[in-house]
Amino acid sequence: MSLNRAQKKEQTRRLLINAALAQLSDERSFGSLSLREVARQAGIAPTSFYRHFQDMDELGLTLVDEAGLTLRQLMRKARQRIESGGSAIQTSVETFMEYVTNNQNIFRLILRERSGSSRLFRAAVSREIAHFCDELADYIQSITPCDRAFARVQADAMVALVFNAGTEALEQQSGEQRRALTTKTVVQLRMVAAGSQTLRQQGAAVGGR
Amino acid sequence: MSLNRAQKKEQTRRLLINAALAQLSDERSFGSLSLREVARQAGIAPTSFYRHFQDMDELGLTLVDEAGLTLRQLMRKARQRIESGGSAIQTSVETFMEYVTNNQNIFRLILRERSGSSRLFRAAVSREIAHFCDELADYIQSITPCDRAFARVQADAMVALVFNAGTEALEQQSGEQRRALTTKTVVQLRMVAAGSQTLRQQGAAVGGR
Repeated sequence: MSLNRAQKKEQTRRLLINAALAQLSDERSFGSLSLREVARQAGIAPTSFYRHFQDMDELGLTLVDEAGLTLRQLMRKARQRIESGGSAIQTSVETFMEYVTNNQNIFRLILRERSGSSRLFRAAVSREIAHFCDELADYIQSITPCDRAFARVQADAMVALVFNAGTEALEQQSGEQRRALTTKTVVQLRMVAAGSQTLRQQGAAVGGR
Repeated sequence: MSLNRAQKKEQTRRLLINAALAQLSDERSFGSLSLREVARQAGIAPTSFYRHFQDMDELGLTLVDEAGLTLRQLMRKARQRIESGGSAIQTSVETFMEYVTNNQNIFRLILRERSGSSRLFRAAVSREIAHFCDELADYIQSITPCDRAFARVQADAMVALVFNAGTEALEQQSGEQRRALTTKTVVQLRMVAAGSQTLRQQGAAVGGR
């Protein structure tokens, strides 16, 4: 089956994205990649790069956007599995850790750019994390009636803990270490969930209220 | 009063440290600084740099170590203030946020190097954060009898949330935004504290138990 022009273009775009991802590592940051290198690894001429991305920044921002989208879709699917039984926290943490384990380069990119030296990238990562917190806040409100500001503070805490665990996971390569990390993170999210319930019952004031 | 040789040496070392710090910014990472530049800003000859540090890495690691020490001392002092009355969480979060506000360049360095491309720096930052968590776990055990593994999981969660708030603080320049962030963080730590109490009462199992 032959590909039409749009399909071929999408295929080359994908090759470039994968070439950039393949070159990232724990010792190589996105900022150190060159357009020439990425094009060579993708098997295209450097000048053809510009048919797909304006510059390396646009390619990097695409990586951040796609990672955010993938992660949110994964977590949404995890929550659907929960509705049909299972522990919400356990399932979500396992899903997240699986994503980090299988996508180390892209998760590392997100962590690095979150406080990196490009304002553009920092804003893109913040936006993705905010989306992530918003969707979790929706979920929290759907299972426990509470006001939005409160749900968002709880969601922010949970996302921060999960991202922190992801950061630690990048340094831990053994299966045993990762299982211990998953267990720890599940306990931490349970602390937040149980504490939120207590605070809600006490009618704690939150910034937005 | 004239300085002796050791004092002069320490003074120059301090000039180099401050020169490096002064050049860091939200758009400039430690990895982009050159030894020549740092020496020039400190007003010494590049060759004299080596009398104080083996290379730029050693200077950077010194920054990380000193920041960790300063931060731990600050938090210890904050806890002493608490013993003489006041809310532990409120006082600690305010102290931490004040540190971040007054030491943006050094806190940014820690965040960046935590998942940066140098294994050496990552290890140094992890070590400092671990010290920080250990001291908080000591404090938690001193006020609420519980086993070490549990106190450490709670401490890790609290430190992760406070560091996350610090990351957000770097992007928020207005006093109002920072006050809202402080309030949010205090609520999040209260969630963890209240939830820990609930879980302890339920006798929740933690990895290390």
